[in-house]
Amino acid sequence: MSHQAPDPLPNPSDIIAAANRLAGHAVRTPLLNAPLLDDLVGTRVLVKPEMLQRTGSFKFRGAYNRISMIPEADREKGVIAFSSGNHAQGVACAARDFGIRATIVMPADAPHIKVENTRSYGADVRLYDRYRENRQAIGEALAAETGATLVKPYDDPGIIAGQGTVGLEIAEQAAELGMKPDIVLVCCGGGGLVSGTALALSEYLPHADVYSVEPAGFDDTARSLAAGERLENAPGAASICDALLASTPGELTFALISRFLKGGLMVTDTEALDAMAVAFRYLKLVSEPGGAVALAALLAGRVDVRGKTVAVVMSGGNVDPARFREALA
Amino acid sequence: MSHQAPDPLPNPSDIIAAANRLAGHAVRTPLLNAPLLDDLVGTRVLVKPEMLQRTGSFKFRGAYNRISMIPEADREKGVIAFSSGNHAQGVACAARDFGIRATIVMPADAPHIKVENTRSYGADVRLYDRYRENRQAIGEALAAETGATLVKPYDDPGIIAGQGTVGLEIAEQAAELGMKPDIVLVCCGGGGLVSGTALALSEYLPHADVYSVEPAGFDDTARSLAAGERLENAPGAASICDALLASTPGELTFALISRFLKGGLMVTDTEALDAMAVAFRYLKLVSEPGGAVALAALLAGRVDVRGKTVAVVMSGGNVDPARFREALA
Repeated sequence: MSHQAPDPLPNPSDIIAAANRLAGHAVRTPLLNAPLLDDLVGTRVLVKPEMLQRTGSFKFRGAYNRISMIPEADREKGVIAFSSGNHAQGVACAARDFGIRATIVMPADAPHIKVENTRSYGADVRLYDRYRENRQAIGEALAAETGATLVKPYDDPGIIAGQGTVGLEIAEQAAELGMKPDIVLVCCGGGGLVSGTALALSEYLPHADVYSVEPAGFDDTARSLAAGERLENAPGAASICDALLASTPGELTFALISRFLKGGLMVTDTEALDAMAVAFRYLKLVSEPGGAVALAALLAGRVDVRGKTVAVVMSGGNVDPARFREALA
Repeated sequence: MSHQAPDPLPNPSDIIAAANRLAGHAVRTPLLNAPLLDDLVGTRVLVKPEMLQRTGSFKFRGAYNRISMIPEADREKGVIAFSSGNHAQGVACAARDFGIRATIVMPADAPHIKVENTRSYGADVRLYDRYRENRQAIGEALAAETGATLVKPYDDPGIIAGQGTVGLEIAEQAAELGMKPDIVLVCCGGGGLVSGTALALSEYLPHADVYSVEPAGFDDTARSLAAGERLENAPGAASICDALLASTPGELTFALISRFLKGGLMVTDTEALDAMAVAFRYLKLVSEPGGAVALAALLAGRVDVRGKTVAVVMSGGNVDPARFREALA
């Protein structure tokens, strides 16, 4: 492959453009408040429930925005994505909306519901071994073979701008409620959601402190932020937060994260499960483990929220029943 | 007590007034769509998820609207309500918002989470025996004693108008999506939600066919509709749909229901549990059994929806973890 200039960083106007493309196609998820959750935490909490997004996670936003940017002539060659599951479903569903063929490269140990749903959207699913094969290499080889457009999971300006509509909506919806979040907590894998959200908030809620939240053993973003350079996770770590297992921040996402984030937080798998039970009880929301880590960080007191208004992004709800029953047990 | 003239029926302008009172206090719940649920049912389905309402059910709408109508001079005497649980929480939370004392009369066998949450909102809870005592008599006696305002669960114009904001929002939000529901399915206990929703839709979506949905053994509304007069349920029936165990339609609610409904449907407890599992999987929503009966009627094919757009109201999510785990098993 020829050397390419790096993609340009997205800016707030790209997020506005994405919001216009998504209007009427993506769900404008509400900004929820539960009085008893406020009592539990001791401050005002606003929850952005992206499990209510089409395909059960925020990933539909970026996928739809990115696919809408594919030139007409390239659309018949299809799209390819590699994903642990939520990006897979987002791309498969958005591709179907556009009438475009999708091939999705997924790890063989992804949650059953994610693989099955991706197939249900009409995508061709290719499974690979997470521990022996390189998904990016597989995806890129398939793309080179077929001419299909590779829809990256996070390190792409169109993806970041699409996910950034979450931040735009938080700013708009909080204003409708007469509130200004002081702290915003966002789940983080490769960083597409948190970088886009932070970019939007830098423009529309500039005084808010934005934090990424990662599972223990996969805190590459927190450590990279502290070090000022992109670091990798040590191999061999495991977590039930299957959506958040990226090994290092993306180039573009880290450029935004290092500019706009206040810091990176970390929670344990047990804390994520506890947060799923809290979301069940107080918010009536089904969260997957990775989707609950931002709420988990709040509940575990990872950041001082006294006297502050806190917004929490819950990023997805594609969880197998057995895991959810475990969280409730 | 002196004889009183019956309360007047609410009209659509009362629902607009309620919507204005609720703005910024109640959640404007989204109108959700899940492509895989559409595939499952074979038509376009729009879901109004009232478990995301404050207190976990639509009941907050009516309670807040009704309490806002209490004259200033009466507010210090407090409010009283009798309820199996969701109205209890709605009244307790709305009363707290207004700084008014609330006493709630609840059946001793109500789900634990409903009793505990009602207490958490600061209400004084009085338990009674559902099979031996008359909750209405207890509530009225307490009201007479203290001068507190009795906030009825459904047969009150202010309550019906508040619940009717669900119908108003369905009409508005469907229009935003460029859609016109042909069929609207609504859970039904005493009929406050379905009568208010049907009243709103008679004005704002007049071609929609509205159906009530009840659990087997508690189909008083369906039978009353067919008979043209208010009938009672046979004693001794049982259902896990604890929110929907009213024995007969209200006077006001039945006057509206008999004018505006197309018919009444019925589902079994098993069908309600299955619908809870479908809401978990496709919508990422936590539903209680009674909150899932409208979706259950759709899934069980109780009404012919071929080629139609269907809106389904899910009314609440206050369910104990053990019951929810049962639905997922």
